[in-house]
Amino acid sequence: MVMLNSMNPRLVHFIAGDTGPWRITDIRQVIGDSLPAADRLEMTSDQPGENSRWILRGVTSNERYVTREEKKLLAEKQQALGRDHATCAALIPIKKSAAWWALTQDERRQIFEEQSRHTHIGLEYLPAVARRLHHCRDLSFDEPFDFLTWFEFAPNDEAAFDRLVGELRTSPEWQYVEREVDIRLRKPGF
Amino acid sequence: MVMLNSMNPRLVHFIAGDTGPWRITDIRQVIGDSLPAADRLEMTSDQPGENSRWILRGVTSNERYVTREEKKLLAEKQQALGRDHATCAALIPIKKSAAWWALTQDERRQIFEEQSRHTHIGLEYLPAVARRLHHCRDLSFDEPFDFLTWFEFAPNDEAAFDRLVGELRTSPEWQYVEREVDIRLRKPGF
Repeated sequence: MVMLNSMNPRLVHFIAGDTGPWRITDIRQVIGDSLPAADRLEMTSDQPGENSRWILRGVTSNERYVTREEKKLLAEKQQALGRDHATCAALIPIKKSAAWWALTQDERRQIFEEQSRHTHIGLEYLPAVARRLHHCRDLSFDEPFDFLTWFEFAPNDEAAFDRLVGELRTSPEWQYVEREVDIRLRKPGF
Repeated sequence: MVMLNSMNPRLVHFIAGDTGPWRITDIRQVIGDSLPAADRLEMTSDQPGENSRWILRGVTSNERYVTREEKKLLAEKQQALGRDHATCAALIPIKKSAAWWALTQDERRQIFEEQSRHTHIGLEYLPAVARRLHHCRDLSFDEPFDFLTWFEFAPNDEAAFDRLVGELRTSPEWQYVEREVDIRLRKPGF
């Protein structure tokens, strides 16, 4: 009944090392400790092998904050991953503080949206930026991050993407972020 | 960085077999498939061995629905596990439907509390019933349940506990339950 290492299509590994379809162009320390340098990144649901510089993992799950109205707005504008012109990507791992997790759901929603307008800020950058959120916090006790967000966009939209993350980083929600790394990537040849 | 099988004090295994400090007195099929019969149950954060009839596992996590006001009411009345007089226990694994998980947070909260009064019904049975909730859904793709709730109470409170689960099972929230098993246990000698 228990299959600890069974294949899980919702569990995604981000494997940094010498191989992989994405070239890592920059690993920026934003808050707290950074991550070691690496050349390439692979994103896969398969069980990772041994040859890696570092591995992060997270699981796609049900939404935790959006209302039906917001979900409808997102659905109208959001794009799938893997678009041909989206040769730029960013992987942003984030860990929130114990104070955040001690808040109740209504308090977290209040900070996330009513104060910080997280979903509404993100909406302004759709459909240019495609996004997938992965949850890590409940996978083990010592996960280094709570969330891994993967973004894909065209080179022309990189400046807009920088504005998006800049806006979020000045929001009240970010007072609860105790570690953040901003990893930028390109498809080789772009 | 990735430690797939590392010890996790928030990850709890419920191991049914021939050993363990709890005697299984009944395994009741409530909705959907039941679980195989077994004599004893052990609850542990350690990595489980091979000798078991079945194993369920879940992780304690942040709360998903209660407001600050409700959390305060719970904190005033709720009791820790392991009380000497609490020689009765129940383990209730539940799986909710895809329709539940497709709801947004505000819709789930509406059904959970405003329509079904889940927290408020539970509050009526405190401090008699101690409770711990474990989440399973995001641990792997093929977890048999979404939640495992563990309850402890005195033999004299078993009838009250039956009323508690009976009330919840007639609530609108339970229309989204597609599998439920009700496992009853006693400390040996009681």
